Amino acid sequence: MSTPLAPVKVAILGPGTVGSEVVRLLTQEAGDLAARVGAPLEIIGVYVRDTSKDRGPHLPPALLTSDASALVAQADVVVELMGGIEPARTLILEAIASGASVVTANKALVAAHGPELYEAADAANVDLYFEAAVAGAIPLVRPVRESLAGDHITRILGIVNGTTNYILDEMTRRGLDYDVALKQAQELGYAEADPTADVEGHDAAAKAAILASLAFHQRVALDDVYCEGISAITADDVIAARETRQVIKLLAIAERTGGGVTVRVHPALVGEDHPLAGVHGAFNAVFIEAESAGGLMFYGQGAGGTPTASAVLGDIVSVARHKATGGKGPLESNYAVHEVLPIDAAQTRYCIRMAVEDRPGVLAAVAAVFQEHGVGIEIVRQVPGQTHAGLILSTYAAPERDLRATVEGLRASDAVAEIKSVLRIEGE
Amino acid sequence: MSTPLAPVKVAILGPGTVGSEVVRLLTQEAGDLAARVGAPLEIIGVYVRDTSKDRGPHLPPALLTSDASALVAQADVVVELMGGIEPARTLILEAIASGASVVTANKALVAAHGPELYEAADAANVDLYFEAAVAGAIPLVRPVRESLAGDHITRILGIVNGTTNYILDEMTRRGLDYDVALKQAQELGYAEADPTADVEGHDAAAKAAILASLAFHQRVALDDVYCEGISAITADDVIAARETRQVIKLLAIAERTGGGVTVRVHPALVGEDHPLAGVHGAFNAVFIEAESAGGLMFYGQGAGGTPTASAVLGDIVSVARHKATGGKGPLESNYAVHEVLPIDAAQTRYCIRMAVEDRPGVLAAVAAVFQEHGVGIEIVRQVPGQTHAGLILSTYAAPERDLRATVEGLRASDAVAEIKSVLRIEGE
Repeated sequence: MSTPLAPVKVAILGPGTVGSEVVRLLTQEAGDLAARVGAPLEIIGVYVRDTSKDRGPHLPPALLTSDASALVAQADVVVELMGGIEPARTLILEAIASGASVVTANKALVAAHGPELYEAADAANVDLYFEAAVAGAIPLVRPVRESLAGDHITRILGIVNGTTNYILDEMTRRGLDYDVALKQAQELGYAEADPTADVEGHDAAAKAAILASLAFHQRVALDDVYCEGISAITADDVIAARETRQVIKLLAIAERTGGGVTVRVHPALVGEDHPLAGVHGAFNAVFIEAESAGGLMFYGQGAGGTPTASAVLGDIVSVARHKATGGKGPLESNYAVHEVLPIDAAQTRYCIRMAVEDRPGVLAAVAAVFQEHGVGIEIVRQVPGQTHAGLILSTYAAPERDLRATVEGLRASDAVAEIKSVLRIEGE
Repeated sequence: MSTPLAPVKVAILGPGTVGSEVVRLLTQEAGDLAARVGAPLEIIGVYVRDTSKDRGPHLPPALLTSDASALVAQADVVVELMGGIEPARTLILEAIASGASVVTANKALVAAHGPELYEAADAANVDLYFEAAVAGAIPLVRPVRESLAGDHITRILGIVNGTTNYILDEMTRRGLDYDVALKQAQELGYAEADPTADVEGHDAAAKAAILASLAFHQRVALDDVYCEGISAITADDVIAARETRQVIKLLAIAERTGGGVTVRVHPALVGEDHPLAGVHGAFNAVFIEAESAGGLMFYGQGAGGTPTASAVLGDIVSVARHKATGGKGPLESNYAVHEVLPIDAAQTRYCIRMAVEDRPGVLAAVAAVFQEHGVGIEIVRQVPGQTHAGLILSTYAAPERDLRATVEGLRASDAVAEIKSVLRIEGE
């Protein structure tokens, strides 16, 4: 523990892009940061696996250590930028046990072990901040935890994966096919050689679990998050969406429903006038609906060394200020208030695009399938086709399980030649 | 001062729409708020001028008092929702002097006397929170003060007046004339019978002063804010903007330039792909550019009793939590770091729409005026006209004073029949 004018001792775990940028900013902005914290910040060491490797001018050899536990034991503030579950989890628990506050940017760890870490921090009366783990540079944790502390969040819709937003945006703006847009994203460095974690929604699912936990004080395991990616989206889907003034976005959704909370990731149709529709390129945005505040949106860069370092530094200033002057950030308590429900319980709207037989009575046959499952049809559009007629139907909101059963019924119907796509409509 | 479990005593000044909504929420959410604060919140009284008037079920007569000073003297937290400069200013200073923390939604007061109030709060070691004074429900103060505490903001562009955004949005989306859109806004309650404060930019100017103060730790007097409204914007301006994929927005801009800070409010051309272009209706949004974080945007409702009450309640929870458990929000210190410069020093880009004589040599004559003042022309578009040719020119960035001199030179030129409009281009 520090007295107000003694330096706050900061340990950095992980010398990657974000870590070295954080060290650079801590060094270059030392005077300004000391004024904001109320005490100087002293970097007491940077944990690396291999201390002999040259790390550039911001990480001189004298700062480096390969003994993470010894470093953590001396720190007031531990900044974990290693990624992965272990040894990050153990080192953070050691830091908390020794009375240090913790800042982490580790999405995988917070998604998988957040509640365990929050509880340890609460018990030790130290801070655990993780702004950079949710949506990179976008300030989200403070607004949700503090600004909305007297309000009730009912729903969060997030564009939380830049790679997939870039791909969908290129498909929308340039009419590209999915494969072409993915290849372009890989060439530009927006997508990795193996893009699975992004395009199949796994990265977004981890962030959805953290968002749900923030919004609803809710323990959400990654396995509770329903997850569907964008690899099945076609140029035709994008064109059909545009015809009804909608765009396709991959959304992370956490929603309070009657009996509990549902958390899901899937592509969705969003109206062109919705602020999420204006999120282009690799940017991220999180749209929050709250009872009193109404709709709020937070937009910015969701990844990248420098933007992420900005979020990490904001957290360092907050927890160091608490160390220097007393006080502590808001508690994460009251867990498990709501039950986490499977996606079957979610109320959604479907837009179903299909090819149907071109003969009388087909529309009646299709409508009968919807009626059988209690799903209301809001809009039907017929579009000309080659061998079959095209039909695009938008439903009213209905339980996901009934919507799925309807699609199964359509697949089994003689009137339907092919289900071309099924997209949920969100943001209304 | 309260011990952790003793109630935090809250005094409400002003029983208007926001005040009664705040009282309703404090009452209905008492259990939840107590858990978040760490102590119960007790409303010890509501100051009203006339205690005999019926204020509805949320403000029973027993809570009402007409002695504001006596009420303030007993409170741990004073919530000022009266509006106007006096007696609000004096009561807030009394509250601070007696050791109470203060929450205010009073835009006019914070714009005019913010620095005096911050200094008094710092000296007394109490909190002064004013989230609702900047942009209604949008969490902005915490992100700027805390999340970006390790970063440097270079520019803020804000749509901070819902009335003018509604009018401009209707002009853009429905092709309405200004007068028609204004009348419609008045009929729907978005604009007042006397719309001057909104349409001439005075309301936005007060918010611009607060934003500049937040972003740059800068004392900005309202008189330092250059202010131009939207009443001169025509349907033709909107059409010309659309032809170059731009929209017109009234922006509050605070910008760090070489020698200091400029703060201004004026209509501006914003590219259709900029997130500010997707802000429709009476919504507000603030776009922040920071050195490390890059571009961030915060979107939501800028006015209205319930959204504003949400922001006030978030502040009450924060300051009450500090009262109950120790600690204090971040200081506002280090004022007057930059000089506030007149708009002449700002670097801007102009889009000039004019009617010119339809004869050879006109373009050369026009170009000579730009060259004389050292202003570069980026794009020239010629559009057909009846008696005159139309010319639309976009400049490169140049000092505002040179751009103005160029426009004066064009007005004086024989080649130019009429300057139809001059709009600045922002957000690039």
